[in-house]
Amino acid sequence: MDRRSFIKKAGLGAGGVVAASTLAAPAIAQSTTDMVIVSTWPRDFPGLGIPAQRLAARIGELTEGRINVQYFAAGERVGAFDSFDEVASGNAQAYIGADYYWKGKHPGWAAFTAIPFGLTYTEMDAWIKFGGGQQLWDELAGEFGLKNLAMGNTGVQMGGWFNKEIESADDLKGLKMRIPGQGGDVMSKLGASPVSLPGGQIYENLVSGAIDATEWVGPFNDYFMKFYEAAKYYYFPGMHEPGAQLAMGMNASWWGSLSKTDQEIIKAACAEENAATMAETNANNGVYLQKLITEHGVELREFSDEVYDAFGEAAAEVLEEAMDHSPLSKKIFQSVVDARQDIGSWMAISDIAYSNKRNRVLGIPS
Amino acid sequence: MDRRSFIKKAGLGAGGVVAASTLAAPAIAQSTTDMVIVSTWPRDFPGLGIPAQRLAARIGELTEGRINVQYFAAGERVGAFDSFDEVASGNAQAYIGADYYWKGKHPGWAAFTAIPFGLTYTEMDAWIKFGGGQQLWDELAGEFGLKNLAMGNTGVQMGGWFNKEIESADDLKGLKMRIPGQGGDVMSKLGASPVSLPGGQIYENLVSGAIDATEWVGPFNDYFMKFYEAAKYYYFPGMHEPGAQLAMGMNASWWGSLSKTDQEIIKAACAEENAATMAETNANNGVYLQKLITEHGVELREFSDEVYDAFGEAAAEVLEEAMDHSPLSKKIFQSVVDARQDIGSWMAISDIAYSNKRNRVLGIPS
Repeated sequence: MDRRSFIKKAGLGAGGVVAASTLAAPAIAQSTTDMVIVSTWPRDFPGLGIPAQRLAARIGELTEGRINVQYFAAGERVGAFDSFDEVASGNAQAYIGADYYWKGKHPGWAAFTAIPFGLTYTEMDAWIKFGGGQQLWDELAGEFGLKNLAMGNTGVQMGGWFNKEIESADDLKGLKMRIPGQGGDVMSKLGASPVSLPGGQIYENLVSGAIDATEWVGPFNDYFMKFYEAAKYYYFPGMHEPGAQLAMGMNASWWGSLSKTDQEIIKAACAEENAATMAETNANNGVYLQKLITEHGVELREFSDEVYDAFGEAAAEVLEEAMDHSPLSKKIFQSVVDARQDIGSWMAISDIAYSNKRNRVLGIPS
Repeated sequence: MDRRSFIKKAGLGAGGVVAASTLAAPAIAQSTTDMVIVSTWPRDFPGLGIPAQRLAARIGELTEGRINVQYFAAGERVGAFDSFDEVASGNAQAYIGADYYWKGKHPGWAAFTAIPFGLTYTEMDAWIKFGGGQQLWDELAGEFGLKNLAMGNTGVQMGGWFNKEIESADDLKGLKMRIPGQGGDVMSKLGASPVSLPGGQIYENLVSGAIDATEWVGPFNDYFMKFYEAAKYYYFPGMHEPGAQLAMGMNASWWGSLSKTDQEIIKAACAEENAATMAETNANNGVYLQKLITEHGVELREFSDEVYDAFGEAAAEVLEEAMDHSPLSKKIFQSVVDARQDIGSWMAISDIAYSNKRNRVLGIPS
């Protein structure tokens, strides 16, 4: 920053005296800027709300208050699903949530959270950062006046909570299930009725019988939701969100008004929290799965190959339909499909092959 | 920072005038501090040297030069394997490398790069950040006057380059192989002669026949090493480094002299680069594996279950011996073993189960 913009940004009047040139070391002073963050997660929600709050605090800390962050959980300023409009309109500076909530505005948004049979966390991270994903995200977000960054990931989701066993794809018919994004479209093709509900409203709908089944995240997150009170069969692995990406979407004009340093600090803080959310989830899921089983009699079940084949067929149709929406949609989903093949083939002979061999030798069950 | 420490840190004499109280916004000024980083990687080495250089530049950028970083690649200031002593002694402020290079100083260092049959990238990240790993790393590093942070990961390593096929464990007998860390100890138990060489010296030893085989990293990194000129069988998956963690080790006194903000910016920058290195590696490995096969006639081979069983038995012995070294060593490796069981069991029903099912349905080969 040159001296003139220094003085301008610091808002100094004629009476202000700054002998900047006498400083032996760099001096940085800037106007503060307000950053109102609205979130789609309830306050203090383990695995989702807490990471969002951690990121909000981190941005204030690393910029030493140059960015003055105010964080509002779902419902504290606007409802969870109104977050997007609040930020696109400029009423708030950023939202934290899952971008597939906005697939009604453009199907491409689903690609930046998760699509059925899509990318795992490590594949997603490689695609976003080094496979062209961020550029496509920028293109889509730009159409809505937003700038989006990855800020968390909850990995492979559990397949969901059901009040009966799912032994074949026929058992899905007629189920009313909370499952948003393209996962819901897959369920619809298999005869279920998908519903999209924010996290804070699922429990009441499940207990009242308004829905028969729900997916949420994984054992660590789900434990606190008490779904086991109404649905005790807990299926793995989810096909619908294999590396559920969380995002911070910022108002693009506000983003453009930041100094380069503050933009880069936000990028670093988001990348840090992105990995931390995944690490926290993976460190806790095993422990909480055991608690669900031993404390609450939850029955762990694995989807059969037959059910997975049915999921796969429906997912291919859903993907094709999403591609047909527009040239941008086609470009986004084709990029995901290419990454799945290229990066996925590498993962198959690295992390997956190694883990299968290690777990066989050591007797770690799958 | 209060006003007194502001003036002290800015090094103002009597003539210095700073009307800090008239500023409308926060003013931050600090002495610069020099940070000399020595690295174990050659300059501009893809996947290793480049991430290290990226991190060095990032620290300067995010602190707006408060930390004045000078980066020296291997051999530019000290040899690769002299980096540790250079930093512990205070001659330099930080090294970037792989901590298993220091296992001769204490076997516990191996745990913070990789151990045979140990943790994958996602498991390692969960253990370090939320499973007690960082605390144990701090305890070990503290004994040497260091503070260490994760700053990169290259994931599951390929099993190595061999000039003959490895059809049974007997084929390993008598092999002179470049393989550092506990992986080398495993090979030794199976009758091979392990050698530790820095990256910049492997090629000449392989071509001259001083060694028969080598592991390095994966296709993206290995492509540039031209090992295929002397050894065309390329095995997967490596048992020896399933999530090779890279580290920045800082002089603890220097670390303690930094402001809280600058410490936290370094932590964020390291976390960002840690994920970026992994993402870059995963995004490139598949592409470079194909180039190795098609351009250079490299033969891809998978270790058999029989060979893996032999690796597993030897690895268990190596682990036990490392634990016997000292109470701290026992504590570190027991923590790794617990994380492998707890986090590994979760990964088995999430990322691994999902990937196996997805890849079966889509025909992605392993």
